[in-house]
Amino acid sequence: MRLIIAGFGTVGQGFAEALSKRADMLSSSYGGVKIVAAFDSKSYAADKNGLDPIALVKRKTDTGSVGADKMKDGIDVLNSVEYDILVEASPTNIQTGGDGLRYIEHALRHGKDVITVNKGPLALKFKELKKLADRKKAMIRFEGTVGGAMPIINLCCEDLKGEKVRSIRGIFNGTCNFILGRMDNGLPFEQALKEAQYMGYAESDPSYDIEGIDTACKVVILANSVFKRNVRFSDVSITGIASVNAEAIALAADQDMVIRLIGEVSDTVLEVSPRLIPKGHPLSISGTLNTAQIIADMAGPITISGKGAGRIETASAILSDLIAVMEKRR
Amino acid sequence: MRLIIAGFGTVGQGFAEALSKRADMLSSSYGGVKIVAAFDSKSYAADKNGLDPIALVKRKTDTGSVGADKMKDGIDVLNSVEYDILVEASPTNIQTGGDGLRYIEHALRHGKDVITVNKGPLALKFKELKKLADRKKAMIRFEGTVGGAMPIINLCCEDLKGEKVRSIRGIFNGTCNFILGRMDNGLPFEQALKEAQYMGYAESDPSYDIEGIDTACKVVILANSVFKRNVRFSDVSITGIASVNAEAIALAADQDMVIRLIGEVSDTVLEVSPRLIPKGHPLSISGTLNTAQIIADMAGPITISGKGAGRIETASAILSDLIAVMEKRR
Repeated sequence: MRLIIAGFGTVGQGFAEALSKRADMLSSSYGGVKIVAAFDSKSYAADKNGLDPIALVKRKTDTGSVGADKMKDGIDVLNSVEYDILVEASPTNIQTGGDGLRYIEHALRHGKDVITVNKGPLALKFKELKKLADRKKAMIRFEGTVGGAMPIINLCCEDLKGEKVRSIRGIFNGTCNFILGRMDNGLPFEQALKEAQYMGYAESDPSYDIEGIDTACKVVILANSVFKRNVRFSDVSITGIASVNAEAIALAADQDMVIRLIGEVSDTVLEVSPRLIPKGHPLSISGTLNTAQIIADMAGPITISGKGAGRIETASAILSDLIAVMEKRR
Repeated sequence: MRLIIAGFGTVGQGFAEALSKRADMLSSSYGGVKIVAAFDSKSYAADKNGLDPIALVKRKTDTGSVGADKMKDGIDVLNSVEYDILVEASPTNIQTGGDGLRYIEHALRHGKDVITVNKGPLALKFKELKKLADRKKAMIRFEGTVGGAMPIINLCCEDLKGEKVRSIRGIFNGTCNFILGRMDNGLPFEQALKEAQYMGYAESDPSYDIEGIDTACKVVILANSVFKRNVRFSDVSITGIASVNAEAIALAADQDMVIRLIGEVSDTVLEVSPRLIPKGHPLSISGTLNTAQIIADMAGPITISGKGAGRIETASAILSDLIAVMEKRR
């Protein structure tokens, strides 16, 4: 299989490393994978015989660019090389979908399979992209967009195919959960946020996380994929955690509860808000893990948790999608 | 697809109900399923045009027999009807594998796919059955043997195919976990056990659960399937929970710990024993849920929990295996 990697930040690099780690397995079980092109916002590298993934990571680390060649638009790269699968890891843009959306549309329109970890395009245009993929008999997979290494999409859409999933409630943003967990220990919001920034969990502009935007994107993706709904980011009722204060936390604790930012989705619900959760409940966990509780009609409650972000963890989600695509194309 | 159901106790009946519930979906997505025969220890029913699953459940409930026809050996039924898949839900026999083992071997030898929820045959002869299946290009699936509705086998063997699973540690017996959780609340072992029996969680002879035998069977199945080891029940180092007393529980609580019966498996470990688990750890839960923590080399820790037993829950695991088989045979 011939891959193009669009976006060569942390996740793109992690994926290149994962490919190198698993080269033997991919070659013996699936006939192998080669990267025929990789690009970031300004540069690209391409070779129809395959690029060395580790050399790409090294050049990016050493020079800040993945390729020696300057590039105006990633679409030109997509047009210049024969490939089978686009791995799309461009920066998230929740207003327009950004370049990632253009790359995904372009690839699908040409019948190429797409694996993306980019929430923007899916939160804005899920249905359109899925329709386009179906029409072109292409696949679009996106395990890494929700919960990082926590395999919730494949769990719901593959393993639980015989179930009717009634609802999913979960912690989908590790930054918020870290902050709320620290507040349980008595830290004020501002100080917990600073700690999250110091630990590298929160961005210097943390609004995307703490206003619930990131969680809302994930809720939209789950609604459209697991529940086959047709919703967009703007359909989600969102309350972030900025209004959660020490008093609220203390009141919750008095009732043996904690406050957690919960994304909830079902056939009728589409909501992100801070909720009271009983201590000891699967959704009462502290720290940066993501956790989701799936209620299925026959299996009952199934809870899954895992690392919601990280270089190699998100790469692992891409790899699982890649293997799924290769199995279906075999 | 033509199914034979071997064993028509709680799980077999639950599966028949699940088939009826999902008849439309199975028919529209996979061309449909019919039960061409079902048998219990003494009787059978067969019809090449398909039996009504709900009528089978009704006859079993009303008369104690699944069929009007008396039967000496289930093998005769397997030989008398054309079928594609054997759903094997006979009683577990951990010493010999019981009739279930004979049925599975017979089906595989004739190139039929097998779905089993029977731990005995797999704990005793996993490698041999897998080899036989491979040689005959047949499938053998067994999601329901470990953790009931908790989809741990498919999670590890399908979703995490790109990972190296380093270890699995889990609570695989809801009865023991219920007892230990009640002991945390101050109940002595004997009283907690009585409560478990009263609630219907524990058998009148509870030794299979509390001596760790049930957990050990599951550990063997995970070792052979996820870790591709070649081990048997007799290879597991087993300590049950009968020796866990109130003093031990209190000592653990002093250190903010609980005691849980943990099954652990890795490339080198194969063990069932009561372990100290810090409160708040995913494996510190109380109640009858099953929980497993999987450590993968890239994804890191992934925890999954779900109902470990129950009529419709185990049926749900069979259904997920059935769909997987039908997808591969399409």
